[in-house]
Amino acid sequence: MGAEVVMKKCQVILASGSPRRKELLGLIFPDFTVQPSPFDEKSLNPADFSPERLVETLSRCKAETVYNTFCNDNTDCIPILVVGGDTVVVSPDGEVMGKPASSEDAARMLRTLSGRCHRVITGVSFFYRDGEKQKAKTFSVETKVWFYPLSESEISGYLDSGEPFDKAGSYGIQGLGGLLVQKIEGDYWNVVGLPAGRLKRELSACGIL
Amino acid sequence: MGAEVVMKKCQVILASGSPRRKELLGLIFPDFTVQPSPFDEKSLNPADFSPERLVETLSRCKAETVYNTFCNDNTDCIPILVVGGDTVVVSPDGEVMGKPASSEDAARMLRTLSGRCHRVITGVSFFYRDGEKQKAKTFSVETKVWFYPLSESEISGYLDSGEPFDKAGSYGIQGLGGLLVQKIEGDYWNVVGLPAGRLKRELSACGIL
Repeated sequence: MGAEVVMKKCQVILASGSPRRKELLGLIFPDFTVQPSPFDEKSLNPADFSPERLVETLSRCKAETVYNTFCNDNTDCIPILVVGGDTVVVSPDGEVMGKPASSEDAARMLRTLSGRCHRVITGVSFFYRDGEKQKAKTFSVETKVWFYPLSESEISGYLDSGEPFDKAGSYGIQGLGGLLVQKIEGDYWNVVGLPAGRLKRELSACGIL
Repeated sequence: MGAEVVMKKCQVILASGSPRRKELLGLIFPDFTVQPSPFDEKSLNPADFSPERLVETLSRCKAETVYNTFCNDNTDCIPILVVGGDTVVVSPDGEVMGKPASSEDAARMLRTLSGRCHRVITGVSFFYRDGEKQKAKTFSVETKVWFYPLSESEISGYLDSGEPFDKAGSYGIQGLGGLLVQKIEGDYWNVVGLPAGRLKRELSACGIL
């Protein structure tokens, strides 16, 4: 996709440990480093933010923390780009769903989503520096997701797969959880964890790609 | 997902050589055989059908040909399930797009889809037999896909990746082609080639799962 020339002289860092974000960023950049952010998410109170502002703020804090670690005052170093992301599920009742605390919590979330439409919002931030030139951008993308009505045996079968436990909203649309989804409206990869097409365009608009 | 018990006593056959359909059917069935159908698609004239009827007919012919090969008059044999699928892209102008004939054809298709909304329709058929009991079903699912406006360099970069050439409409939404997609409305896996969630529910409704 024409990204190779730029990337030979830019250090790209993903400030997230998510294997799904890693896979998606790999569609834009052939080569990058993963550096999960040390930023403590618990230092923010989710109740103080709308879901959009929450994921935007979290993605910015995650990316900026890593950027500050890698960037220094030496303007002769090669360009650096740090990308961060954060995803939440907003239930039909407005509850912001993170990762489940337990099996019971995961079952409760899946029952809440069953047969209804919810929102998935991913915030993305990037920080870029090339000598004196600096760029930074934060945005969020929303996708609507409709679940099929789920039976109790379907919910317990899905819990048994182990898939729900590290996923916001207790499902992964790219795995067995995709069998629970009737349709979506919006960007699919945004539900997976990174709206890669939009990110590529935002990077182009900033002259980074 | 509770499918394992049934599958121990049922021979499942995918009548398609598509690696993408293989991956998606694997979400429903832990174990199955791939047997691409010998049915000659060219024996049908696409102009004689609406896009929905075309993919439904092709999926049925593909699955039935394989079913007839494997099924015999011995009602004592283990149950057999054959699944077939066929996907087309319908351009904003109503052109039914199959796989591109050449690089120029692929570029033409991508230019046609650029910045606009098109439809992806997958037809699915299954044939099932358990002793005297027989079931068969055909359905189709439509998903709307919006492309970002594409530059000529983006189109040529995508062609260089080699990805477009075995794909209806000249793109694969699950690969680099996903970077061209702004949003969808409907089932994502239907665009990939098999609406697995809907198929699972249709099989359940027939008492097969």
